[in-house]
Amino acid sequence: MRIALDAMGTDEAPGTEVAGAFDAFGDHGRELEILLVGDREEIEAELARGGRDYPQDRLRVVHAPERILPGDQPVSAVRRKPRSSIALGVGLLKDGLADAFVSAGSTGAVLAASLFKLRRIPGVARPTLGALLPTSKSPTLMLDAGANVDCKTEHLVQFARLGNVYAQDLMGVDRPRVGLLNIGEEPEKGDERALETYGLLSESGLHFVGNVEGRDIIRGVCDVLVCDGFVGNVLLKFYESVAELIIGLLGKSTKEMHHDKRLDEVLRVLDYAEYGGAPLLGVNGVAVICHGHSPPKAIRNAIGVAARAVRSGMVAHIQRELGTRVPAKETA
Amino acid sequence: MRIALDAMGTDEAPGTEVAGAFDAFGDHGRELEILLVGDREEIEAELARGGRDYPQDRLRVVHAPERILPGDQPVSAVRRKPRSSIALGVGLLKDGLADAFVSAGSTGAVLAASLFKLRRIPGVARPTLGALLPTSKSPTLMLDAGANVDCKTEHLVQFARLGNVYAQDLMGVDRPRVGLLNIGEEPEKGDERALETYGLLSESGLHFVGNVEGRDIIRGVCDVLVCDGFVGNVLLKFYESVAELIIGLLGKSTKEMHHDKRLDEVLRVLDYAEYGGAPLLGVNGVAVICHGHSPPKAIRNAIGVAARAVRSGMVAHIQRELGTRVPAKETA
Repeated sequence: MRIALDAMGTDEAPGTEVAGAFDAFGDHGRELEILLVGDREEIEAELARGGRDYPQDRLRVVHAPERILPGDQPVSAVRRKPRSSIALGVGLLKDGLADAFVSAGSTGAVLAASLFKLRRIPGVARPTLGALLPTSKSPTLMLDAGANVDCKTEHLVQFARLGNVYAQDLMGVDRPRVGLLNIGEEPEKGDERALETYGLLSESGLHFVGNVEGRDIIRGVCDVLVCDGFVGNVLLKFYESVAELIIGLLGKSTKEMHHDKRLDEVLRVLDYAEYGGAPLLGVNGVAVICHGHSPPKAIRNAIGVAARAVRSGMVAHIQRELGTRVPAKETA
Repeated sequence: MRIALDAMGTDEAPGTEVAGAFDAFGDHGRELEILLVGDREEIEAELARGGRDYPQDRLRVVHAPERILPGDQPVSAVRRKPRSSIALGVGLLKDGLADAFVSAGSTGAVLAASLFKLRRIPGVARPTLGALLPTSKSPTLMLDAGANVDCKTEHLVQFARLGNVYAQDLMGVDRPRVGLLNIGEEPEKGDERALETYGLLSESGLHFVGNVEGRDIIRGVCDVLVCDGFVGNVLLKFYESVAELIIGLLGKSTKEMHHDKRLDEVLRVLDYAEYGGAPLLGVNGVAVICHGHSPPKAIRNAIGVAARAVRSGMVAHIQRELGTRVPAKETA
């Protein structure tokens, strides 16, 4: 299992990535090999800081002299910086030199590089970016989380199918409950797109549990929550910011919070790092995208997500499911 | 100042409404007259419970023998139940027997009754329901909060103008900062509607501060936040549910929280009751809609919102602003 890890993605790269990689070895042992992709000098300085044990033969540095910055326009950045950690990392995946790619860098650039190099799985109109939302029960995979706006109803139904595979393979749910984000419970509620999507999901053969309102999300009423990337992105960023604000206002370190049973529970519901990264679904390969503010725990968990996706054969599963079900519908 | 108060709206009606009305007299004194609209017997039983001082000559009961229930289809309920507290309450406003109407009942029914009886202000294509979102600074008026979906760009620009008047008249902001809810900061981000609306708002003469992302909302970066009612409704309900969950997990009463400086600050950011109610903007009259779970504090504050709207002449202000600016654009 070879995971290419973008070492230059987080706000405190490459320290966070190296720490996350170290922790991941603790989870996966010698089964795992990590390719740290980024500035060799910076990464080696971080590795040399010592004090941590890691299997040196299982960790390699792949030098990437270029770097895609947060302000860069994603598509042109991937083209202009072919030796960036993102372009090189996705390239390793494409060339069969890695089984998965994990990055906390520019979401847009990882998306663009994945679409260029890995390409869409035939039958998938629009690959989608999911996000795992913490809830008071098990997490909910919301998709799309911002990669696709102005979605048509058939795109939303495909997101549901992609999420269904993810929930089966990575969340261990046999028959995932699929919900449609909407502004009321009744089938006749919503905007035109939601109304039509409701009908299509009802007849999809998926375990469709109906409309899910904003207030239901946190209650964990579904495993897969389908929405257009506009509302998904607004919701995700809002959730993260509320979490940060509340944790900030409580004025305690996360360590202190873990010691207080009540605060620990609050933290669990608010802490996106728990789930690590969000998978890009519908491309020919396993790419996991983390938050730019990710702490080492999120990197470690994202490596775990990537490893489970590889082990379960998620990409082949998507090829089977979506290739069969929507044979000729490559509307882009 | 005569405020008609729907006494049958909250989950614990009419007790909550009566308690809120009592508190409102404390704020406004003899300037205020409240018409409690609802089941006379239930209201009088509540009033007779005693223990509270209130100016008996300033409080009247208007009997409403019918009641619109949460499950009722709003438009037909208003037609079928003309003697419901909502239909009668809006009727008092229409007939000049009250200066404002406050309700925690069915949002859809208050909307429908207001559109039928009060009618749109000429020039306003779609009256809009706002919601005051608590932030780490001053509250933000988000609109639309769920009354209008499938909005066109010109509707969003009107929401901005309506919100601008509200923020001037009721929030005391001279030159309200107007933001557009979007999925990125840059002008070229967003779906088609957001892109086009960005251009229109830039040329609107309003103090447009640009795109506001999900993560910026809680930071209070604008006074008026414009969005389609689909995303607005999802966001609002999500916010309320996160607040409830966190407060629940903290396992303390709000009284206990007020005693802890840090928790008090958390509560302030999460507590929608602080702002009472959301105004319906663009109809010929002052109608304020509260949450169905409103505690007495929210009713009291909603009465305060209604009183300020009446005092400031908000409706006439909207008539001046929108009548002038969009003279013949009555696209429904």
